[in-house]
Amino acid sequence: MPNLEARLDRLGITIPEAPKPVASYVPSVAVHSGSLVFISGQLPFEKGKLMATGRVPGQVSIETAQKCARQCVVNGLAALLGEIGSFERLRRVVRLGVFVNAGEGFAEQPKVGNGASDLLVELLGENGRHARAAVGVSSLPLDAPVEIEFTFLVD
Amino acid sequence: MPNLEARLDRLGITIPEAPKPVASYVPSVAVHSGSLVFISGQLPFEKGKLMATGRVPGQVSIETAQKCARQCVVNGLAALLGEIGSFERLRRVVRLGVFVNAGEGFAEQPKVGNGASDLLVELLGENGRHARAAVGVSSLPLDAPVEIEFTFLVD
Amino acid sequence: MPNLEARLDRLGITIPEAPKPVASYVPSVAVHSGSLVFISGQLPFEKGKLMATGRVPGQVSIETAQKCARQCVVNGLAALLGEIGSFERLRRVVRLGVFVNAGEGFAEQPKVGNGASDLLVELLGENGRHARAAVGVSSLPLDAPVEIEFTFLVD
Repeated sequence: MPNLEARLDRLGITIPEAPKPVASYVPSVAVHSGSLVFISGQLPFEKGKLMATGRVPGQVSIETAQKCARQCVVNGLAALLGEIGSFERLRRVVRLGVFVNAGEGFAEQPKVGNGASDLLVELLGENGRHARAAVGVSSLPLDAPVEIEFTFLVD
Repeated sequence: MPNLEARLDRLGITIPEAPKPVASYVPSVAVHSGSLVFISGQLPFEKGKLMATGRVPGQVSIETAQKCARQCVVNGLAALLGEIGSFERLRRVVRLGVFVNAGEGFAEQPKVGNGASDLLVELLGENGRHARAAVGVSSLPLDAPVEIEFTFLVD
Repeated sequence: MPNLEARLDRLGITIPEAPKPVASYVPSVAVHSGSLVFISGQLPFEKGKLMATGRVPGQVSIETAQKCARQCVVNGLAALLGEIGSFERLRRVVRLGVFVNAGEGFAEQPKVGNGASDLLVELLGENGRHARAAVGVSSLPLDAPVEIEFTFLVD
């Protein structure tokens, strides 16, 4: 391994202070052991029906999209429970990939994602905090407004 | 770890039944041990040439996009073989990230993704089942219709 | 595990040669042990301000987008350092997810991503090489031109 500090110096790059957690997600999550569970991209199904369809914010408001993101968490937890049998085995939420059905210039992906992230922290406290990437995509399966994939750490 | 069931109750959230696997991909995959291999996003190259270019479904039909997704699997397996030397070390397909070059309102990402997922199950049986996120993106490298990234579990 | 070679034969599929590494990212990365660190999607903040906003290449040139990608690496390393305390624990860059704010027909995601990938290899040599998926998305948080998420392997 080369000396990273020396190379940073040579390139004139200063590493800023680590970002502070300002929301329900955190800049990073380390997985020290245990098993990872990868959950497929979840859509906001409720009782077998999508809560909403269409683009954010034109056809689906940010508030509704947040509720959809929250419902993706509910469905992601259902998939997790199907895999591990009991939530007692859950140790940590690791990562969320948040895809918002949104066109050019939409900038509020974090707000939408917070619908998911905030619920996870409300449910799991510190262990609910996770790394997250949130982006706007041109289209989603079944014209859903939000899709979220999850990685969990379990015992 | 807080008591998740109690908090779900307090928030009035009922976790639905775990989704049943209805296709070649599954709601979740647990990685219990072994090594993960991360494969870069694969494009549908065949003998050095993209099988198709452009958007789905306007310029590239869903059927062609499915064949492209299938070819991404072939190329992903090639990258895996280059990494691990023999398919005998392959234990499980863990995750697919499926990106379809598709505009507003396109809703058939799952159909396109099935071109990849079905081939993996045809090739690997139960061990070919995987978690998957499929989304429509505004553009892809070289104007490819599909890009797929893979995570495998190996011995 | 079914005999994959036999099934490939039966389906008439020939696995091509593994792709050669032609750039600062590689077709695959195997994670043999150690801990994974997942870093949230990073935006090109410099001293608290986005280096640029808008779409590539109309509002933000490819050159500027490359600089933004490079800055995402700087910020990703900052988040990593906040997590692990010292770069001496860093063993390998595992994966980059590169999201470029770009419309229909944009094909230069790899060039933009190289702004990030090349810096990682410049900094870390062989251990800086990583798997990568680069796609064009319809919009990004705060109208940033690039967002990058990272997975690192640490001791």
